[in-house]
Amino acid sequence: MIKVSIIGGSGLTGRELVRILLKHSGVEICHVTSRQYVGTDFSALYPEFKGQTDLKFTDPDAKDVLSGVDAAFICLPHTEAMEFVKKAYDKGVKAIDLSADFRIKSAAEYKKWYKHEHKHPQLLKKSVYGQPELYREQIENALILANAGCHATATILGIAPAVASFGVEGIVSDSKTGISGAGAKPTDTNTYMNISENVIPYNFGRKHRHIGEIEDVMLHKFGKKISMILTPQLTSLDRGIVATIYIRLKKWVDVEKAKKAYADFYAGEPFVRMVDSINLHAVQNTNYCDILVDGVKEENTLIVITAIDNLVKGASGQAVQNMNIMFGFDEKEGLL
Amino acid sequence: MIKVSIIGGSGLTGRELVRILLKHSGVEICHVTSRQYVGTDFSALYPEFKGQTDLKFTDPDAKDVLSGVDAAFICLPHTEAMEFVKKAYDKGVKAIDLSADFRIKSAAEYKKWYKHEHKHPQLLKKSVYGQPELYREQIENALILANAGCHATATILGIAPAVASFGVEGIVSDSKTGISGAGAKPTDTNTYMNISENVIPYNFGRKHRHIGEIEDVMLHKFGKKISMILTPQLTSLDRGIVATIYIRLKKWVDVEKAKKAYADFYAGEPFVRMVDSINLHAVQNTNYCDILVDGVKEENTLIVITAIDNLVKGASGQAVQNMNIMFGFDEKEGLL
Amino acid sequence: MIKVSIIGGSGLTGRELVRILLKHSGVEICHVTSRQYVGTDFSALYPEFKGQTDLKFTDPDAKDVLSGVDAAFICLPHTEAMEFVKKAYDKGVKAIDLSADFRIKSAAEYKKWYKHEHKHPQLLKKSVYGQPELYREQIENALILANAGCHATATILGIAPAVASFGVEGIVSDSKTGISGAGAKPTDTNTYMNISENVIPYNFGRKHRHIGEIEDVMLHKFGKKISMILTPQLTSLDRGIVATIYIRLKKWVDVEKAKKAYADFYAGEPFVRMVDSINLHAVQNTNYCDILVDGVKEENTLIVITAIDNLVKGASGQAVQNMNIMFGFDEKEGLL
Amino acid sequence: MIKVSIIGGSGLTGRELVRILLKHSGVEICHVTSRQYVGTDFSALYPEFKGQTDLKFTDPDAKDVLSGVDAAFICLPHTEAMEFVKKAYDKGVKAIDLSADFRIKSAAEYKKWYKHEHKHPQLLKKSVYGQPELYREQIENALILANAGCHATATILGIAPAVASFGVEGIVSDSKTGISGAGAKPTDTNTYMNISENVIPYNFGRKHRHIGEIEDVMLHKFGKKISMILTPQLTSLDRGIVATIYIRLKKWVDVEKAKKAYADFYAGEPFVRMVDSINLHAVQNTNYCDILVDGVKEENTLIVITAIDNLVKGASGQAVQNMNIMFGFDEKEGLL
Repeated sequence: MIKVSIIGGSGLTGRELVRILLKHSGVEICHVTSRQYVGTDFSALYPEFKGQTDLKFTDPDAKDVLSGVDAAFICLPHTEAMEFVKKAYDKGVKAIDLSADFRIKSAAEYKKWYKHEHKHPQLLKKSVYGQPELYREQIENALILANAGCHATATILGIAPAVASFGVEGIVSDSKTGISGAGAKPTDTNTYMNISENVIPYNFGRKHRHIGEIEDVMLHKFGKKISMILTPQLTSLDRGIVATIYIRLKKWVDVEKAKKAYADFYAGEPFVRMVDSINLHAVQNTNYCDILVDGVKEENTLIVITAIDNLVKGASGQAVQNMNIMFGFDEKEGLL
Repeated sequence: MIKVSIIGGSGLTGRELVRILLKHSGVEICHVTSRQYVGTDFSALYPEFKGQTDLKFTDPDAKDVLSGVDAAFICLPHTEAMEFVKKAYDKGVKAIDLSADFRIKSAAEYKKWYKHEHKHPQLLKKSVYGQPELYREQIENALILANAGCHATATILGIAPAVASFGVEGIVSDSKTGISGAGAKPTDTNTYMNISENVIPYNFGRKHRHIGEIEDVMLHKFGKKISMILTPQLTSLDRGIVATIYIRLKKWVDVEKAKKAYADFYAGEPFVRMVDSINLHAVQNTNYCDILVDGVKEENTLIVITAIDNLVKGASGQAVQNMNIMFGFDEKEGLL
Repeated sequence: MIKVSIIGGSGLTGRELVRILLKHSGVEICHVTSRQYVGTDFSALYPEFKGQTDLKFTDPDAKDVLSGVDAAFICLPHTEAMEFVKKAYDKGVKAIDLSADFRIKSAAEYKKWYKHEHKHPQLLKKSVYGQPELYREQIENALILANAGCHATATILGIAPAVASFGVEGIVSDSKTGISGAGAKPTDTNTYMNISENVIPYNFGRKHRHIGEIEDVMLHKFGKKISMILTPQLTSLDRGIVATIYIRLKKWVDVEKAKKAYADFYAGEPFVRMVDSINLHAVQNTNYCDILVDGVKEENTLIVITAIDNLVKGASGQAVQNMNIMFGFDEKEGLL
Repeated sequence: MIKVSIIGGSGLTGRELVRILLKHSGVEICHVTSRQYVGTDFSALYPEFKGQTDLKFTDPDAKDVLSGVDAAFICLPHTEAMEFVKKAYDKGVKAIDLSADFRIKSAAEYKKWYKHEHKHPQLLKKSVYGQPELYREQIENALILANAGCHATATILGIAPAVASFGVEGIVSDSKTGISGAGAKPTDTNTYMNISENVIPYNFGRKHRHIGEIEDVMLHKFGKKISMILTPQLTSLDRGIVATIYIRLKKWVDVEKAKKAYADFYAGEPFVRMVDSINLHAVQNTNYCDILVDGVKEENTLIVITAIDNLVKGASGQAVQNMNIMFGFDEKEGLL
């Protein structure tokens, strides 16, 4: 039985973490913090938890928040998260950071994408990128775990086998996402009136920050410098990402051979399923990533479509999967 | 005042035609036919019309269906439509065909995409492709009008200026569509339970038939042989298409220059709007096509995003726009 | 041709008014005001209007806002609206007030429901309640028109014939509404995440303010003191109200007789349709009110179900219908 | 560890049963039958189960379907279900019937509501109505368990304490439901186009068959003959029921006193939560029933609002709760 704190737990990733960890046989949640809701019942903010937990929000600055705990899930906005990661690291508490602060290895690249000076660049090399399918062994010993981003997860899992094995000329990821990816705070964008029956492309081209971590991972993991286009698009849904990825190859690879390469790459993975058709319902509220591989020979292009739940495999579920690896639990514990 | 019949008017394109034509100052609807609903009030099938029209469905085989009318809108499935088009043509009634039967100029290409022998290939050369922005002059004198397909309209309007003016290496159109594009008949696909909160890619690669007409139009209009990928994807919406189109160029064209080329190409067009952000709500229930132009220099790729209502600009609205041109009405009549 | 100003036109009722009035053959919109958006294009806020209007938001405090106009639509929040109504009245401009400020005849009752002292109680008796089906003749000469509320419209039209003709023991109106009824401003309530796939009852019992105007109208129009329960419930929709109304009778009235009473009451009404089944789609984006009458003899209870679009018949459409009556236009002008 | 079969498991209640039972520590699913899908993988029909179960659909007529199993969940349509219940009963297999065939104690009443002669009326008195909050003790020993209907569950739990303790004059239950209550088979009703952004009342008055079981339960459990109105209404959602219930009292009971009566009645119930506001999201995908109690003294009327998931507490979850009671498991096993 390990003890954990959830720092900044009033948002959607906090809610998902609590949902998952309450079903986990080896974890006790000691603190869920929220500056705004100190003293409030967790189930008052999220009434679905009524009768299931007595957790109350506590103050993140309280002395005991990191005392006697084995791990801290950091659900703070980027730039705020790095301070808490540092604090946890200094106390010997394993930090599982759901923000973007430790995903990119280079402080300069971090600044380029996030327009913010990294305060603890010396810790960047201590952190491990939290994509179990690529970094499982490093994750086992990670002290700072940089949980992968949602669009990044959908795209990385869709391109990794191709980048690893084939010559890739160019990548376009057309990534449809639910509105929960943008957080729970009401804005002009996330009203029902705006989102219902709508499709809204945003940050298209090379504007979305997750490009930074995707390219960084391809470079460090496979030694391949790729350059890609990512087009996030809000669609009329609460949760889920479907990334339709067009991978232009230097040399054509037969679709059956490509399928086999993907199946081999993900053989034994507990949360990757190779599928023949994509239906977002099959992955919502689960930690699965479904992957479909097809292609168009005339265009020298593989079409890979991936589907995940942005709040589970794209955030809190993957965080727990990473935690399971870090602490020697069954990797699926709490996640099925 | 002209008189028209709507053949096969019990489906969604029929419903939209009636909605639009009731507001048109120069058109009288003489017949709306439906084998299944002969004798039924149009407003019994579509209760929103109660109090607005006394139209009843009549038998498409009745003698008088094409007598004394100036134009017939053919809303039948492809392969059935061609017989009615022939009948109208022989009677001197202008045929506005909303099916795919006369969109592709070559009978062989038609057979390739639709797996069906064209019964009246001699009429193919008489037909005009019903995309006013490309073929307005020919439409003025058309006797057979092949109204453009929905995904085709969204993609053609998004690529035409680039194909016309720039060297194009490859095109990928990632085309999100509402479920109304698949018709009103209940299927396992179009239930609420399946479509709500879902994204479902289908016919991806080079499987969708609209590729046939898009490539045909590029060839005949601009003399450019292009080959493309089209990925239609059902999203959780009733009506609308957002096509995110990646146009790989032979030689980079600055985005501002590309924007200008598009603006020039569509200058004066009553239903094309160049925009800086795409929001499907802005075009739903209208005949507009909104077009956004952007690009990524590093990838030599223009990103063009178009938005239409698949039942209006992608079907019945465009059909009326074409009719307006064919009969000398103000092109916007009934459509604003 | 009359000239109108829309005061406080940046919200949803302003948007609907512009949409309707642009199609109206006898109205010119001179001003649309908004403190927040002075100088901004109307079509910048609501992009669906791009290409259809050059209107810009102007300052409501500008001298000329009420100069040379025949009518002013007041779309301000209650308590703010009354000041502008007074200003218009003093200038001889007919005021069409979409707020609640002039709907209740008694200043004391107004205060009871709105917790606010009425500043211009002397004008209350000048105002006419804007429900054409009940007050058409008075509306013809109205200088201050208090446009009926949305839940109020759905319930009043559902109970008026019964209250007029039968002995009524008690009324329960279970009124499902779309989220647009709560305005466009983002809140914790109107996010997509909260509203999608949800049903949220609120202000149930006798808490909703529209009870005040419903009971007031029954008293003044029919001399009947009724007391009712109203249960508004947010459902997962953008626009529309379906009010399921249970009218307990003192003495049973056969359903067929009740249907006839309703049909007679609304005979000749351009926007009331007696129907046999309710489908909200039939009234969305229209000015119609559909009404179904049924009943349960064993319970001495009529069941009347009404459906309207809360933004059209429940707000801006009815406002234009009232304007048409006030200025001698065809009552349906702009509304079909 | 007990063994169970699911008869007629290809529909939504079968899907939910499998979802729940896979998480149940004490149950092994031996068979899931479906005439239509014999031999098909369960996860082919419901892809979310891929990687979680190897179950294949088997033939319901196969000899071994009821051999060696402890319980059978019958998910067949009414009239078909009774044959299988008889078969199970004869074999000594406990039958948990999700159909309506054994809910009403009197064969004559059954025939009145279901227009069908009951084939095994002698078994009616053996069956126990599957609402644990009312019949827990009888359920412990039940051989035939008639799992309560979805609208019935929402209304019964909402009225039971009042019927038990107060004098009730009349009841109106306005019961909003998701489309999954109508099953998975595509129809003109359950298309996305029809259900999205809609509210559709149906079977209002005393037409809905669940009235039969509600009144029957009140009579047999509390000796109270009540007569009620039930208005089911499809709303734009997949799953969930919110029943707004108006209970007219013979003598006013203060709201606080009523709240206490409800809280006492449900004290210790693991799946009933007394709440101060209703939000369907709090119960979706759970076995909870949330209950809010309010009232209007002037109208002598309690307003009780209940919320359940129609597929869980309204069907398969309650079936497993009943099974837990029948077999001595922790009542919450598999359901949290």
